[in-house]
Amino acid sequence: MGLAAPPAGFDAVPTPADNPTTPEKVALGRQLFFDTRLSADESRSCYSCHVCEHGLTDGLPVAQGALGKQLTRSSPSLWNIGYHTEFYWDGRSSSLEAQAKAAWTGGNMGANADEVVAMLNGIDGYASQFQDVFGEGATPDNVVQAIAAFERTLLTPSRFDDFLNGKASALNDQEQKGLQRVVQKGCIICHNGVGAGGGMFQKFGIRGRYEYSDDLGRYNVTKKEADKYFFKVPMWRNVTRTAPYFNDGSIWDLSEAVRIMGRIQIGQKLTDDDVDAIVAFLHSLEGKMPQEAMVLPVLPASTLATPKPVFK
Amino acid sequence: MGLAAPPAGFDAVPTPADNPTTPEKVALGRQLFFDTRLSADESRSCYSCHVCEHGLTDGLPVAQGALGKQLTRSSPSLWNIGYHTEFYWDGRSSSLEAQAKAAWTGGNMGANADEVVAMLNGIDGYASQFQDVFGEGATPDNVVQAIAAFERTLLTPSRFDDFLNGKASALNDQEQKGLQRVVQKGCIICHNGVGAGGGMFQKFGIRGRYEYSDDLGRYNVTKKEADKYFFKVPMWRNVTRTAPYFNDGSIWDLSEAVRIMGRIQIGQKLTDDDVDAIVAFLHSLEGKMPQEAMVLPVLPASTLATPKPVFK
Repeated sequence: MGLAAPPAGFDAVPTPADNPTTPEKVALGRQLFFDTRLSADESRSCYSCHVCEHGLTDGLPVAQGALGKQLTRSSPSLWNIGYHTEFYWDGRSSSLEAQAKAAWTGGNMGANADEVVAMLNGIDGYASQFQDVFGEGATPDNVVQAIAAFERTLLTPSRFDDFLNGKASALNDQEQKGLQRVVQKGCIICHNGVGAGGGMFQKFGIRGRYEYSDDLGRYNVTKKEADKYFFKVPMWRNVTRTAPYFNDGSIWDLSEAVRIMGRIQIGQKLTDDDVDAIVAFLHSLEGKMPQEAMVLPVLPASTLATPKPVFK
Repeated sequence: MGLAAPPAGFDAVPTPADNPTTPEKVALGRQLFFDTRLSADESRSCYSCHVCEHGLTDGLPVAQGALGKQLTRSSPSLWNIGYHTEFYWDGRSSSLEAQAKAAWTGGNMGANADEVVAMLNGIDGYASQFQDVFGEGATPDNVVQAIAAFERTLLTPSRFDDFLNGKASALNDQEQKGLQRVVQKGCIICHNGVGAGGGMFQKFGIRGRYEYSDDLGRYNVTKKEADKYFFKVPMWRNVTRTAPYFNDGSIWDLSEAVRIMGRIQIGQKLTDDDVDAIVAFLHSLEGKMPQEAMVLPVLPASTLATPKPVFK
């Protein structure tokens, strides 16, 4: 286990055999991602919680859902989400497709998938794209396949990748010192793989409880005592852009988050020198965001038959 | 009065002498336009009500504001807004700059301008841009100048412009018939100028009351009896993309809106043939949306000193 560079150009994101990525599918998924008509009250799209100006998260402690609901955990960034192997903080979805469906039909967007699919099939501009891409009209399954295909393109290669690929000068001395620290201290045992996180569950508070949250994490999914306080390990990529931190969004200061991790995960009081170096290193994982992902789509227009937004 | 083609390439949008448009100012304005940190509770940006997928309006009958407030009138499209000479349905702002400030500090975004400006000046990525563009830090006035400069670039040249510029084939026979109808019936007396609207106030219900709304319109601003039920004439450009219609967003069907206008503005019961031709003509005013306006900006990141969102 350890940190890994992505294949050159991030071009081999793990992709399910039954949902190959094609440009047409990505284009369709991008429209669906930005379309508020997919939510119960037309108030939310996927983008509502995953905005690029906050690193594809929302900049809030916990997520807001459709129908004015406040949810209980912090929205993750979607950059490089294709490298995650577990989804949601408690891992209750095991694929990007499953997560998209759960967010769409659960508290995030509160939609009735069958009604939304009927709506999409009533809009020529959508129906024809589904026909072209999937050989059938919109279905709950192919809607989330298209969205997941789009999400797999949200990749941000960083200076750290250049470093791992052999360009030593890509990281300055302070950043390299921070890298040494996270290796020496074992942080990368959990923040591992291409994402530097996103690939395993770990107890939040191995060496001491995190005092600000009662969230039982993965236990809520498995009901196994051993899973209490276990959460998906978040990615380090772009972590400098995604405050506030932790499952409950309780910590705004990345240095403070690093200190807390030292204390409750590895049982060490990190020095200011360690913390500064580690935060400097984390900046080297800030990625270059692809401009083409940032272009807002023009969505197929509603027709008179399209259900109106629920709005008094 | 009548319809007018824009200058070639829409390149001469009326611009205040004290707020010349520059690429750097537009880039800054685009960031501010998308930044939810400008609103009272970080829930809304300018973009929240003016989304490109609904023709730069919100697709809702009436606008939603910050702090969960529902407002009383329908959000207009911002495409080609630089050609408007009056702002808000009741014309209570007389420049794009004044409108931006009113929306920012009024019900739409509910912000305290002084607090937001202090926040912006505390973020290096913003402070340096304001310094470059205005030779000073952010102020309530230069924030809205930047936003207005960006808005003046939101232009959608259409087939109708090609037609006015001499290309007769740009409109098909049905569309040309619709154009003849709106000229013959006098619709263009009010829907005039480059915007085909946006340049004058008119009574909504010259020949009969619009029965669905009690909104007194411009009277609320001037308190003059003669201004009762007067509203800014909306633009026809992209009207096919901006349902629902009228100040109260009460009508979803453009054909129905055209029929109502015939009845209460010119006192005629339009035939289905008239209505179909007029709606066909209105489609020729659908513009090509500039891709560069659709690229989401990456916003300067908050610092630890940046006030946190109001969010329990």
